[in-house]
Amino acid sequence: MIKIIVDCFGGDHSPEANVDGAIASLKSLSDLHLILSGDEAALQRCLEGKDYDRSRVEILHAPQVIGCDERPTDVIRLKRESSMIKAIRLLRDDDSVAAMVSTGSTGALVAGALTRLGRLRGVIRPAFCPILPTMNGGIVGVCDSGANVEVTPEHLRQFAIMASLYMENVYGISRPRVALLNVGKEAEKGDELRQTAYRLLEQTAEINFVGNMESRDLLSGSYDVVVADGFSGNVLIKSTEGAAIELLGKLKKDIYSKFIYKVGAALMSRMFKQEKEFMNYQNYGGSVLLGTSKVVVKGHGSSKAVAVQKCIEQAYKMQVSALAGKMEDVICRYEHYEQ
Amino acid sequence: MIKIIVDCFGGDHSPEANVDGAIASLKSLSDLHLILSGDEAALQRCLEGKDYDRSRVEILHAPQVIGCDERPTDVIRLKRESSMIKAIRLLRDDDSVAAMVSTGSTGALVAGALTRLGRLRGVIRPAFCPILPTMNGGIVGVCDSGANVEVTPEHLRQFAIMASLYMENVYGISRPRVALLNVGKEAEKGDELRQTAYRLLEQTAEINFVGNMESRDLLSGSYDVVVADGFSGNVLIKSTEGAAIELLGKLKKDIYSKFIYKVGAALMSRMFKQEKEFMNYQNYGGSVLLGTSKVVVKGHGSSKAVAVQKCIEQAYKMQVSALAGKMEDVICRYEHYEQ
Repeated sequence: MIKIIVDCFGGDHSPEANVDGAIASLKSLSDLHLILSGDEAALQRCLEGKDYDRSRVEILHAPQVIGCDERPTDVIRLKRESSMIKAIRLLRDDDSVAAMVSTGSTGALVAGALTRLGRLRGVIRPAFCPILPTMNGGIVGVCDSGANVEVTPEHLRQFAIMASLYMENVYGISRPRVALLNVGKEAEKGDELRQTAYRLLEQTAEINFVGNMESRDLLSGSYDVVVADGFSGNVLIKSTEGAAIELLGKLKKDIYSKFIYKVGAALMSRMFKQEKEFMNYQNYGGSVLLGTSKVVVKGHGSSKAVAVQKCIEQAYKMQVSALAGKMEDVICRYEHYEQ
Repeated sequence: MIKIIVDCFGGDHSPEANVDGAIASLKSLSDLHLILSGDEAALQRCLEGKDYDRSRVEILHAPQVIGCDERPTDVIRLKRESSMIKAIRLLRDDDSVAAMVSTGSTGALVAGALTRLGRLRGVIRPAFCPILPTMNGGIVGVCDSGANVEVTPEHLRQFAIMASLYMENVYGISRPRVALLNVGKEAEKGDELRQTAYRLLEQTAEINFVGNMESRDLLSGSYDVVVADGFSGNVLIKSTEGAAIELLGKLKKDIYSKFIYKVGAALMSRMFKQEKEFMNYQNYGGSVLLGTSKVVVKGHGSSKAVAVQKCIEQAYKMQVSALAGKMEDVICRYEHYEQ
């Protein structure tokens, strides 16, 4: 039996999408048990009339709601009765609970998890690892992408180990190709942090380090894991997403500018739908926090039921693959390097 | 009379495109004088039979050629007789020469210019400032984007001042909106560098500082100048360009996958051509190095004649607008803060 908490508030389509995604995941995973966190009356209303195994669902009543503009530190301090913070607390305190899924504020979730949950043995800094689709139909993970704005070379090595094991165990990629985000391909590129990290990564036998990656190659399909400090990793994923969204938006606007374009686009509508699906976050599951004592998966704020379901399945897979133990095992081999 | 050196080798379409671009710029700017640097015989062949004012063109013979995989430091040390390094040397030594345009290796050009040319009065670190098109038809400059991988808050303030004056004087944008690249909009986001820089930028009356920018908003049209350290600025522009190129490439591939899509695309061919033009570097001139004692403009490696012409006109405009003096003037007001 794998027990996972689903934070049912804080997303654009909460709580309906979260509850529906939860119910769907119960059907696909027979030994899954769920705790839904949020306002009990609202959750009961969403569950009403739905077909699911009641013995495998509990509710964690949490009456407070987090506003979208609240600062992460305020949320942790002042919103102790919110669905997110109560979920984090239960995750920390209840040994039988394996993981948590949330579609709420990324900042609050990361800050809450980092301050409230412990770390895996040997891990200096947990890191955030979102997944992006590559142009050849694969995926790439970027670790870290926001949890740590200042890092050391040893932190970067740990990110590489954790993300590599994650891609292998959850996505079935064997010997993931790990690259270091840098301003050029050559080993001596970048600042001292990058140069030292390059040498450390080269010396880490447990990962398949393939050298530096320039940011323009993120979507090329040549890499499975990109290691970065949280600042530039964040810039990398957000500018990539931003450019894709802006460009598709421009295309759409331009299509509507002339009748003949609309006709052309109608003939291509199936293709455009596929491109939209391809770019859709919902299809790639959530971003995970790697290195915390328990599994935390962050779904996109705009997650619909299917995306929430994917996040739950992702958390489940992290747990059943015993990823945490594997990460501790490799990281502790290098623990004497800890700074 | 404004005298500009054009490095005629090192681009994908060199020397023909460089020479043709040079000739075109002579026609549009009547007080322009050009020095073409490169192998004399090859340049004479390109000039042969062309209609231009011979009294306004000189040749600087430079027999050595720079290979595409050569390291910038090796180029500077070993390729002293190359068109790029001879051009930098002449720019440094000849007071009558105002500027230089090159389509050769960015690394070698930046390294050569930084080590060989002096800096403007008060400037601690020159910075690289490319221009990107925004989705509403405008442009945005990113400064720095590669010349300085490690910076201080005071460096960032200087980048803001220089890039702001550049956008105003060369592109006619009045009171350019200056943003600081960060991982969130709030003033307290990011590391100590960003937090301190935020306060310094707020206190700089000569610029129109509008706060932090998240990288996903680069192309939104809400900003005219984005200030960044050279590492994350480089990640920002290259991942934005990379995502746009990969996405358009995928669209093209998908269009060819079905007959009906090809028909649709044919109806939209004019629109696709416009999108391609819109994304085309060639239309936005080159990236400039701000803060060196003389003007240096770097055109894209794939520049054709029209792009080279735009780079020459850009260098010309920087010179006639007396940008250097304006930058020195503002920067020196803050010189006592220099670290």
